[in-house]
Amino acid sequence: MTDTDAPRRRSDVTRASILTAARERFAADGYERATVRAIAQDAGIDPSMVMRYYGSKEGLFAAVIDVELVLPDLASIPVDDVGAVLVGHFLDLWEHDSVLQTLLRVGVTNEAGAARMRDVFTGQILPLAERFVVTRDDAARRAALVASQVLGMALVRYVLRFGPAADLTRADVVAWLGPTVQRYLTAPEP
Amino acid sequence: MTDTDAPRRRSDVTRASILTAARERFAADGYERATVRAIAQDAGIDPSMVMRYYGSKEGLFAAVIDVELVLPDLASIPVDDVGAVLVGHFLDLWEHDSVLQTLLRVGVTNEAGAARMRDVFTGQILPLAERFVVTRDDAARRAALVASQVLGMALVRYVLRFGPAADLTRADVVAWLGPTVQRYLTAPEP
Repeated sequence: MTDTDAPRRRSDVTRASILTAARERFAADGYERATVRAIAQDAGIDPSMVMRYYGSKEGLFAAVIDVELVLPDLASIPVDDVGAVLVGHFLDLWEHDSVLQTLLRVGVTNEAGAARMRDVFTGQILPLAERFVVTRDDAARRAALVASQVLGMALVRYVLRFGPAADLTRADVVAWLGPTVQRYLTAPEP
Repeated sequence: MTDTDAPRRRSDVTRASILTAARERFAADGYERATVRAIAQDAGIDPSMVMRYYGSKEGLFAAVIDVELVLPDLASIPVDDVGAVLVGHFLDLWEHDSVLQTLLRVGVTNEAGAARMRDVFTGQILPLAERFVVTRDDAARRAALVASQVLGMALVRYVLRFGPAADLTRADVVAWLGPTVQRYLTAPEP
Protein backbone atom coordinates (compact mmCIF):
# COMPACT_ATOMS: atom_id res chain seq x y z
CA MET A 1 0.00 0.00 0.00
CA THR A 2 1.40 3.36 -1.02
CA ASP A 3 0.98 6.70 0.70
CA THR A 4 -1.68 7.84 -1.78
CA ASP A 5 -4.00 4.91 -1.15
CA ALA A 6 -5.19 5.98 2.27
CA PRO A 7 -6.74 9.33 1.24
CA ARG A 8 -8.41 7.73 -1.76
CA ARG A 9 -9.85 4.98 0.38
CA ARG A 10 -11.09 7.50 2.89
CA SER A 11 -12.84 9.45 0.13
CA ASP A 12 -14.38 6.19 -1.19
CA VAL A 13 -15.81 5.51 2.24
CA THR A 14 -17.15 9.04 2.48
CA ARG A 15 -18.76 8.81 -0.95
CA ALA A 16 -20.33 5.47 -0.11
CA SER A 17 -21.80 6.77 3.12
CA ILE A 18 -23.16 9.85 1.33
CA LEU A 19 -24.79 7.68 -1.35
CA THR A 20 -26.36 5.36 1.21
CA ALA A 21 -27.74 8.27 3.19
CA ALA A 22 -28.99 9.99 0.03
CA ARG A 23 -30.70 6.87 -1.29
CA GLU A 24 -32.58 6.40 1.98
CA ARG A 25 -33.46 10.06 2.35
CA PHE A 26 -34.75 10.50 -1.21
CA ALA A 27 -36.82 7.32 -0.82
CA ALA A 28 -38.26 8.43 2.51
CA ASP A 29 -38.79 12.16 1.91
CA GLY A 30 -39.00 12.48 -1.88
CA TYR A 31 -36.76 14.68 -3.94
CA GLU A 32 -38.11 18.09 -2.93
CA ARG A 33 -38.10 17.57 0.83
CA ALA A 34 -34.80 15.69 1.07
CA THR A 35 -32.13 18.29 1.88
CA VAL A 36 -28.38 18.09 1.47
CA ARG A 37 -28.12 19.11 5.10
CA ALA A 38 -30.22 16.15 6.27
CA ILE A 39 -28.35 13.73 4.03
CA ALA A 40 -25.00 14.98 5.32
CA GLN A 41 -26.21 14.66 8.89
CA ASP A 42 -27.35 11.07 8.26
CA ALA A 43 -23.92 10.33 6.78
CA GLY A 44 -22.18 11.97 9.74
CA ILE A 45 -20.26 14.48 7.61
CA ASP A 46 -20.30 18.16 6.80
CA PRO A 47 -22.71 19.33 4.03
CA SER A 48 -19.78 20.98 2.25
CA MET A 49 -18.35 17.49 1.58
CA VAL A 50 -21.56 16.51 -0.23
CA MET A 51 -21.26 19.58 -2.44
CA ARG A 52 -17.57 18.89 -3.00
CA TYR A 53 -18.23 15.36 -4.28
CA TYR A 54 -21.55 15.83 -6.08
CA GLY A 55 -21.78 19.56 -6.85
CA SER A 56 -25.45 19.95 -6.01
CA LYS A 57 -28.51 18.13 -4.77
CA GLU A 58 -29.34 17.40 -8.42
CA GLY A 59 -25.93 15.82 -8.99
CA LEU A 60 -26.31 13.72 -5.87
CA PHE A 61 -29.75 12.58 -6.97
CA ALA A 62 -28.43 11.60 -10.39
CA ALA A 63 -25.68 9.59 -8.69
CA VAL A 64 -28.02 7.52 -6.53
CA ILE A 65 -30.95 7.04 -8.82
CA ASP A 66 -31.42 3.58 -10.13
CA VAL A 67 -33.80 3.30 -13.04
CA GLU A 68 -34.92 -0.18 -13.99
CA LEU A 69 -37.48 -0.02 -16.79
CA VAL A 70 -38.15 -3.78 -16.49
CA LEU A 71 -39.05 -3.86 -20.17
CA PRO A 72 -41.09 -6.82 -21.38
CA ASP A 73 -39.34 -9.60 -23.26
CA LEU A 74 -40.24 -8.72 -26.83
CA ALA A 75 -39.47 -12.25 -27.99
CA SER A 76 -42.64 -13.42 -26.24
CA ILE A 77 -44.90 -10.80 -27.89
CA PRO A 78 -46.44 -11.02 -31.40
CA VAL A 79 -44.45 -8.56 -33.49
CA ASP A 80 -47.52 -6.51 -34.40
CA ASP A 81 -48.34 -5.90 -30.73
CA VAL A 82 -44.93 -4.56 -29.77
CA GLY A 83 -45.83 -0.86 -30.04
CA ALA A 84 -48.98 -1.13 -27.95
CA VAL A 85 -47.35 -3.34 -25.31
CA LEU A 86 -44.41 -0.96 -24.91
CA VAL A 87 -46.60 2.16 -24.68
CA GLY A 88 -48.76 0.45 -22.04
CA HIS A 89 -45.66 -0.60 -20.12
CA PHE A 90 -44.19 2.91 -20.15
CA LEU A 91 -47.50 4.42 -19.05
CA ASP A 92 -47.67 2.03 -16.10
CA LEU A 93 -44.10 2.95 -15.15
CA TRP A 94 -44.81 6.68 -15.26
CA GLU A 95 -48.08 6.34 -13.36
CA HIS A 96 -46.64 4.24 -10.56
CA ASP A 97 -43.10 5.45 -10.11
CA SER A 98 -42.67 9.13 -9.36
CA VAL A 99 -38.89 8.74 -9.46
CA LEU A 100 -39.10 8.81 -13.26
CA GLN A 101 -40.84 12.17 -13.23
CA THR A 102 -38.23 13.47 -10.84
CA LEU A 103 -35.44 12.15 -13.04
CA LEU A 104 -36.96 13.92 -16.03
CA ARG A 105 -37.09 17.22 -14.12
CA VAL A 106 -33.53 16.81 -12.94
CA GLY A 107 -32.30 15.64 -16.36
CA VAL A 108 -33.65 18.75 -18.04
CA THR A 109 -31.78 21.11 -15.75
CA ASN A 110 -28.67 19.25 -14.63
CA GLU A 111 -25.93 17.62 -16.67
CA ALA A 112 -25.49 14.70 -14.26
CA GLY A 113 -29.22 14.02 -14.55
CA ALA A 114 -29.10 14.23 -18.36
CA ALA A 115 -26.15 11.83 -18.38
CA ARG A 116 -28.10 9.38 -16.25
CA MET A 117 -31.01 9.55 -18.70
CA ARG A 118 -28.64 8.91 -21.59
CA ASP A 119 -27.34 5.85 -19.70
CA VAL A 120 -30.88 4.52 -19.30
CA PHE A 121 -31.49 5.12 -23.00
CA THR A 122 -28.31 3.37 -24.11
CA GLY A 123 -28.56 0.53 -21.64
CA GLN A 124 -32.27 -0.24 -21.77
CA ILE A 125 -34.11 1.35 -24.73
CA LEU A 126 -31.50 0.84 -27.42
CA PRO A 127 -31.35 -2.95 -26.97
CA LEU A 128 -35.11 -3.08 -27.65
CA ALA A 129 -34.60 -1.76 -31.14
CA GLU A 130 -31.72 -4.09 -31.89
CA ARG A 131 -34.17 -6.97 -32.10
CA PHE A 132 -35.81 -5.47 -35.20
CA VAL A 133 -33.01 -4.12 -37.34
CA VAL A 134 -29.65 -5.15 -38.67
CA THR A 135 -27.26 -2.31 -37.91
CA ARG A 136 -26.53 -0.74 -34.57
CA ASP A 137 -26.80 2.77 -36.04
CA ASP A 138 -30.27 2.07 -37.33
CA ALA A 139 -31.27 0.61 -33.96
CA ALA A 140 -29.97 3.71 -32.20
CA ARG A 141 -31.99 5.97 -34.49
CA ARG A 142 -35.16 3.97 -33.95
CA ALA A 143 -34.66 3.84 -30.22
CA ALA A 144 -34.22 7.63 -30.19
CA LEU A 145 -37.52 8.05 -32.05
CA VAL A 146 -39.28 5.79 -29.55
CA ALA A 147 -37.76 7.76 -26.68
CA SER A 148 -38.87 11.06 -28.23
CA GLN A 149 -42.51 9.94 -28.32
CA VAL A 150 -42.60 8.15 -24.98
CA LEU A 151 -40.76 10.88 -23.06
CA GLY A 152 -42.72 13.56 -24.92
CA MET A 153 -46.01 12.13 -23.70
CA ALA A 154 -44.62 11.90 -20.16
CA LEU A 155 -43.54 15.53 -20.44
CA VAL A 156 -46.89 16.97 -21.53
CA ARG A 157 -49.03 14.61 -19.42
CA TYR A 158 -47.20 14.48 -16.08
CA VAL A 159 -44.70 17.33 -15.96
CA LEU A 160 -46.18 20.25 -17.94
CA ARG A 161 -49.70 18.92 -17.34
CA PHE A 162 -51.34 20.06 -20.57
CA GLY A 163 -55.04 19.50 -19.78
CA PRO A 164 -55.99 17.43 -22.83
CA ALA A 165 -52.85 15.27 -22.48
CA ALA A 166 -53.55 14.61 -18.80
CA ASP A 167 -57.18 13.78 -19.65
CA LEU A 168 -56.36 11.04 -22.16
CA THR A 169 -57.32 7.61 -20.85
CA ARG A 170 -54.74 4.84 -20.77
CA ALA A 171 -56.61 3.20 -23.67
CA ASP A 172 -56.48 6.46 -25.70
CA VAL A 173 -52.74 6.79 -25.20
CA VAL A 174 -52.11 3.18 -26.18
CA ALA A 175 -54.40 3.45 -29.23
CA TRP A 176 -52.75 6.63 -30.50
CA LEU A 177 -49.10 6.07 -29.54
CA GLY A 178 -48.93 2.31 -30.03
CA PRO A 179 -48.89 2.51 -33.85
CA THR A 180 -46.32 5.32 -33.69
CA VAL A 181 -43.90 3.27 -31.60
CA GLN A 182 -44.65 0.21 -33.73
CA ARG A 183 -43.73 2.16 -36.87
CA TYR A 184 -40.54 3.57 -35.34
CA LEU A 185 -39.36 0.09 -34.38
CA THR A 186 -40.48 -2.06 -37.27
CA ALA A 187 -41.35 -0.03 -40.40
CA PRO A 188 -38.87 0.24 -43.27
CA GLU A 189 -36.81 3.45 -43.39
CA PRO A 190 -39.07 6.19 -44.79
CA MET B 1 -58.75 58.99 -7.53
CA THR B 2 -59.05 57.16 -4.21
CA ASP B 3 -56.38 56.62 -1.59
CA THR B 4 -55.78 53.02 -2.71
CA ASP B 5 -55.03 53.91 -6.32
CA ALA B 6 -51.64 55.43 -5.69
CA PRO B 7 -49.93 52.32 -4.22
CA ARG B 8 -51.39 50.13 -6.92
CA ARG B 9 -50.20 52.47 -9.64
CA ARG B 10 -46.77 52.63 -8.08
CA SER B 11 -46.57 48.83 -8.04
CA ASP B 12 -47.70 48.73 -11.70
CA VAL B 13 -44.87 51.08 -12.60
CA THR B 14 -42.39 48.97 -10.64
CA ARG B 15 -43.58 45.77 -12.33
CA ALA B 16 -43.36 47.36 -15.77
CA SER B 17 -39.83 48.58 -15.18
CA ILE B 18 -38.80 45.12 -13.89
CA LEU B 19 -40.29 43.43 -16.96
CA THR B 20 -38.58 45.85 -19.36
CA ALA B 21 -35.23 45.39 -17.64
CA ALA B 22 -35.68 41.60 -17.55
CA ARG B 23 -36.63 41.37 -21.22
CA GLU B 24 -33.52 43.31 -22.26
CA ARG B 25 -31.21 41.46 -19.88
CA PHE B 26 -32.41 37.96 -20.87
CA ALA B 27 -32.07 38.92 -24.54
CA ALA B 28 -28.56 40.33 -24.07
CA ASP B 29 -27.07 37.85 -21.59
CA GLY B 30 -29.16 34.71 -22.05
CA TYR B 31 -31.06 33.00 -19.28
CA GLU B 32 -28.15 31.54 -17.31
CA ARG B 33 -26.02 34.69 -17.13
CA ALA B 34 -28.84 37.18 -16.52
CA THR B 35 -29.05 37.67 -12.76
CA VAL B 36 -31.90 39.03 -10.68
CA ARG B 37 -29.38 41.44 -9.18
CA ALA B 38 -28.45 42.88 -12.59
CA ILE B 39 -32.09 43.13 -13.67
CA ALA B 40 -32.99 44.92 -10.44
CA GLN B 41 -30.07 47.30 -10.90
CA ASP B 42 -31.19 48.07 -14.48
CA ALA B 43 -34.70 48.76 -13.18
CA GLY B 44 -33.33 50.95 -10.38
CA ILE B 45 -34.92 48.93 -7.59
CA ASP B 46 -33.90 46.51 -4.87
CA PRO B 47 -33.55 42.81 -5.85
CA SER B 48 -35.95 41.88 -3.05
CA MET B 49 -38.72 43.67 -4.98
CA VAL B 50 -38.14 41.39 -7.98
CA MET B 51 -38.46 38.34 -5.76
CA ARG B 52 -41.55 39.82 -4.10
CA TYR B 53 -43.35 40.26 -7.42
CA TYR B 54 -42.08 37.24 -9.36
CA GLY B 55 -40.89 34.75 -6.73
CA SER B 56 -37.77 33.64 -8.57
CA LYS B 57 -35.69 34.19 -11.67
CA GLU B 58 -37.70 31.41 -13.31
CA GLY B 59 -40.98 33.16 -12.50
CA LEU B 60 -39.65 36.41 -13.90
CA PHE B 61 -38.50 34.67 -17.06
CA ALA B 62 -41.90 33.07 -17.52
CA ALA B 63 -43.51 36.50 -17.13
CA VAL B 64 -41.45 38.18 -19.85
CA ILE B 65 -41.11 35.41 -22.36
CA ASP B 66 -43.03 35.92 -25.55
CA VAL B 67 -43.36 32.82 -27.68
CA GLU B 68 -44.62 33.32 -31.19
CA LEU B 69 -44.57 30.04 -33.08
CA VAL B 70 -45.49 31.81 -36.36
CA LEU B 71 -47.18 28.65 -37.55
CA PRO B 72 -47.77 28.30 -41.28
CA ASP B 73 -51.25 28.92 -42.65
CA LEU B 74 -52.48 25.37 -43.07
CA ALA B 75 -55.16 26.48 -45.53
CA SER B 76 -52.43 27.09 -48.10
CA ILE B 77 -50.85 23.62 -47.74
CA PRO B 78 -52.08 20.39 -49.37
CA VAL B 79 -53.70 18.40 -46.58
CA ASP B 80 -51.35 15.43 -47.03
CA ASP B 81 -48.30 17.65 -46.48
CA VAL B 82 -49.45 19.15 -43.21
CA GLY B 83 -47.49 16.79 -40.94
CA ALA B 84 -44.18 17.22 -42.77
CA VAL B 85 -44.57 21.00 -43.05
CA LEU B 86 -45.31 21.35 -39.34
CA VAL B 87 -42.43 19.14 -38.25
CA GLY B 88 -40.04 21.12 -40.49
CA HIS B 89 -41.37 24.38 -39.09
CA PHE B 90 -40.92 23.27 -35.48
CA LEU B 91 -37.41 22.01 -36.18
CA ASP B 92 -36.47 25.38 -37.67
CA LEU B 93 -37.89 27.13 -34.62
CA TRP B 94 -35.95 24.95 -32.19
CA GLU B 95 -32.73 25.23 -34.16
CA HIS B 96 -32.82 29.01 -34.47
CA ASP B 97 -34.42 30.22 -31.29
CA SER B 98 -32.74 29.19 -28.06
CA VAL B 99 -35.48 30.86 -26.05
CA LEU B 100 -37.68 27.81 -26.71
CA GLN B 101 -35.10 25.48 -25.19
CA THR B 102 -34.84 27.77 -22.20
CA LEU B 103 -38.62 27.87 -21.84
CA LEU B 104 -38.71 24.08 -21.87
CA ARG B 105 -36.09 23.89 -19.12
CA VAL B 106 -37.93 26.47 -17.05
CA GLY B 107 -41.34 24.91 -17.74
CA VAL B 108 -40.18 21.55 -16.42
CA THR B 109 -39.06 22.95 -13.08
CA ASN B 110 -41.22 25.99 -12.44
CA GLU B 111 -44.99 26.33 -12.31
CA ALA B 112 -45.00 29.79 -13.95
CA GLY B 113 -42.96 28.36 -16.81
CA ALA B 114 -45.30 25.37 -17.16
CA ALA B 115 -48.29 27.74 -17.19
CA ARG B 116 -46.65 29.75 -19.96
CA MET B 117 -46.14 26.58 -21.99
CA ARG B 118 -49.79 25.64 -21.49
CA ASP B 119 -50.75 29.11 -22.77
CA VAL B 120 -48.67 28.61 -25.90
CA PHE B 121 -50.29 25.22 -26.38
CA THR B 122 -53.83 26.51 -25.95
CA GLY B 123 -53.30 29.69 -27.92
CA GLN B 124 -51.23 28.43 -30.82
CA ILE B 125 -51.16 24.62 -31.18
CA LEU B 126 -54.78 23.86 -30.38
CA PRO B 127 -56.17 26.12 -33.16
CA LEU B 128 -54.11 24.10 -35.67
CA ALA B 129 -56.06 20.97 -34.89
CA GLU B 130 -59.42 22.70 -35.03
CA ARG B 131 -59.08 22.90 -38.80
CA PHE B 132 -59.28 19.12 -39.13
CA VAL B 133 -61.91 17.98 -36.70
CA VAL B 134 -65.42 18.82 -35.62
CA THR B 135 -65.39 19.03 -31.83
CA ARG B 136 -63.17 21.16 -29.66
CA ASP B 137 -62.46 18.21 -27.34
CA ASP B 138 -61.21 16.13 -30.23
CA ALA B 139 -59.06 19.02 -31.46
CA ALA B 140 -57.57 19.42 -27.98
CA ARG B 141 -56.70 15.72 -27.82
CA ARG B 142 -55.07 15.79 -31.25
CA ALA B 143 -53.14 18.96 -30.45
CA ALA B 144 -51.87 17.32 -27.26
CA LEU B 145 -50.65 14.32 -29.26
CA VAL B 146 -48.84 16.62 -31.71
CA ALA B 147 -47.29 18.52 -28.80
CA SER B 148 -46.15 15.26 -27.17
CA GLN B 149 -44.21 14.23 -30.29
CA VAL B 150 -42.81 17.64 -31.22
CA LEU B 151 -41.77 18.56 -27.66
CA GLY B 152 -40.48 15.03 -27.09
CA MET B 153 -38.11 15.30 -30.04
CA ALA B 154 -36.95 18.72 -28.81
CA LEU B 155 -36.36 17.19 -25.39
CA VAL B 156 -34.20 14.27 -26.50
CA ARG B 157 -32.43 16.18 -29.32
CA TYR B 158 -31.65 19.56 -27.75
CA VAL B 159 -32.09 19.29 -23.99
CA LEU B 160 -31.11 15.75 -22.97
CA ARG B 161 -28.91 15.38 -26.08
CA PHE B 162 -29.34 11.67 -26.70
CA GLY B 163 -26.61 11.07 -29.31
CA PRO B 164 -28.69 9.31 -31.98
CA ALA B 165 -31.47 11.93 -31.65
CA ALA B 166 -29.00 14.79 -32.02
CA ASP B 167 -27.42 13.05 -35.03
CA LEU B 168 -30.65 12.76 -37.03
CA THR B 169 -30.62 15.05 -40.04
CA ARG B 170 -33.43 17.52 -40.59
CA ALA B 171 -34.65 15.29 -43.46
CA ASP B 172 -34.62 12.21 -41.17
CA VAL B 173 -36.70 13.97 -38.54
CA VAL B 174 -39.23 15.21 -41.10
CA ALA B 175 -39.45 11.78 -42.77
CA TRP B 176 -40.02 9.94 -39.49
CA LEU B 177 -42.11 12.46 -37.51
CA GLY B 178 -44.09 13.97 -40.41
CA PRO B 179 -46.37 10.93 -40.83
CA THR B 180 -46.84 10.76 -37.04
CA VAL B 181 -48.03 14.36 -36.81
CA GLN B 182 -50.11 13.89 -39.97
CA ARG B 183 -51.86 10.91 -38.39
CA TYR B 184 -52.47 12.71 -35.08
CA LEU B 185 -54.10 15.63 -36.91
CA THR B 186 -56.02 13.96 -39.69
CA ALA B 187 -56.53 10.21 -39.15
CA PRO B 188 -59.86 8.87 -37.86
CA GLU B 189 -59.99 8.08 -34.14
CA PRO B 190 -58.20 4.75 -33.62
